Amino acid sequence: MPEFEDLIKIYQTRVNQALEKYLPPKEDSRLLNAVHYSVLNGGKRLRSILVYLSSELGKTESSIADATACAVEFIHCYSLIHDDLPAMDDDKLRRGKPTCHMKFDEATAILAGDALQPMAYELICSIENLPDATKVLMMNKLTRACSYQGMVEGQMKDIEMKKDMTVIELDLLHEQKTGILIETSLELGGIIGGLDDSELSILKAYGKKIGLAYQIRDDIIDIESPTFESGKPQGSDAMKKKITYPSLVGIEEAKLKSQSLAEEASNILMNLNSKSESLRSLTSYVVTRNY
Amino acid sequence: MPEFEDLIKIYQTRVNQALEKYLPPKEDSRLLNAVHYSVLNGGKRLRSILVYLSSELGKTESSIADATACAVEFIHCYSLIHDDLPAMDDDKLRRGKPTCHMKFDEATAILAGDALQPMAYELICSIENLPDATKVLMMNKLTRACSYQGMVEGQMKDIEMKKDMTVIELDLLHEQKTGILIETSLELGGIIGGLDDSELSILKAYGKKIGLAYQIRDDIIDIESPTFESGKPQGSDAMKKKITYPSLVGIEEAKLKSQSLAEEASNILMNLNSKSESLRSLTSYVVTRNY
Repeated sequence: MPEFEDLIKIYQTRVNQALEKYLPPKEDSRLLNAVHYSVLNGGKRLRSILVYLSSELGKTESSIADATACAVEFIHCYSLIHDDLPAMDDDKLRRGKPTCHMKFDEATAILAGDALQPMAYELICSIENLPDATKVLMMNKLTRACSYQGMVEGQMKDIEMKKDMTVIELDLLHEQKTGILIETSLELGGIIGGLDDSELSILKAYGKKIGLAYQIRDDIIDIESPTFESGKPQGSDAMKKKITYPSLVGIEEAKLKSQSLAEEASNILMNLNSKSESLRSLTSYVVTRNY
Repeated sequence: MPEFEDLIKIYQTRVNQALEKYLPPKEDSRLLNAVHYSVLNGGKRLRSILVYLSSELGKTESSIADATACAVEFIHCYSLIHDDLPAMDDDKLRRGKPTCHMKFDEATAILAGDALQPMAYELICSIENLPDATKVLMMNKLTRACSYQGMVEGQMKDIEMKKDMTVIELDLLHEQKTGILIETSLELGGIIGGLDDSELSILKAYGKKIGLAYQIRDDIIDIESPTFESGKPQGSDAMKKKITYPSLVGIEEAKLKSQSLAEEASNILMNLNSKSESLRSLTSYVVTRNY
């Protein structure tokens, strides 16, 4: 899909420019230097691309889409900084560069994450030309995704990981840890695009499928992609004895599962009234990417 | 002030009951057990009392005041959990009990703080009978207090603490680390009470004074109050070679400073149209407390 990859690059450039605009100048603040370092590190920007694509199912001002896209990237970035900490996953490399606590130190990394979370909410609450009711709705969705119902509980389950975990339990962990922010990105894009409740539900259902497909693909990449391509040490899940989809059902079954989730996701999109070619292309990208 | 201390106890009971109501059931979640443990630990509840007292300068529903009071306590509690971490202040005792990471572990403590922050915002955004515009205004104030302009930058400065710090630099550190949430608690209470902008500015100016007075009193308590009274190891600031108000200007000068800040704070209150006896009593309490 060379054409779609070009489209992805366009959105990546757009969100990276928006991030540079919305980040406060780092000046001589150690904290803001760590924030800049962690946010502007060449991430895939999947979540912000989801915001853009779903907002384009309807209609919105580009500045509103940019701010929403940056807000979800701030949240995603905060969660990565904290997940990488020594007390958590103890990861030293992220996107091919030292993780925040390796580049700065642990205290700075904890605080950089702590600062990014409210920056995301502040950004949404400060969007111009957006009704307050919309902002409150978006805040409810986003805070819920970030709370004990969502990402934080998912990470807690990941750390506590039981040795006898079942596929169903692993699915729930992934739904909370990564799925919910992917769903929420789609919902937020749909909300600012002015989609109705039934279309938002379709986006959420679609997000549930690609969220899981994305995670399974991540686990496959960890096994198959060399470090220079993925930016993470190859085989690190196995080294940490992490339970993953491939470790539970085997890599071939995992590939089939991610493919079938992608198909289900594509079928869900057919229920949308609006044109959804870009989201359809994204679905394939999610399960074929190598990094 | 025995009468005022009785009033404080009434508010403490009220906010503790509200906290129990607003906290999700802990069930078998390690994360929520850590959240409950850290929130329901018998804190002084200064910030929520400030919400109540300032809201009573105007008029609001008691459930709105309760939710706002709990939101600021959630934020305060998240910041304490993270400040206590080994990578930060490395404190083992908080209010006479093991800190969150000592009772659970570091990962759980980081995540408990990470969960409490969005819970605060979610609570505000879910308040019934409050206009969306008010919620957005409150969110803007609170996220700003929690962001790189406020608490997080204050904690960063505290950790980086320069050896040749001046009183002016120390004041700015305290303003960001503790003052801003105290000011914001007063402002949020004033907002839900329906006060006008000029009264909100007076509350903010008052908060600036008592925030600093409160911090200086904290430093004096660290020197003078035995552990059984303060719930923290006596003399821990000196042991950590922390720069404090007393270490910079001497303990007698520090006491005079906190007294004069309290007087200035009381004078500011005289500009309010509404009756402010309770806030006036609170001002004295802030600089005479021993724990």
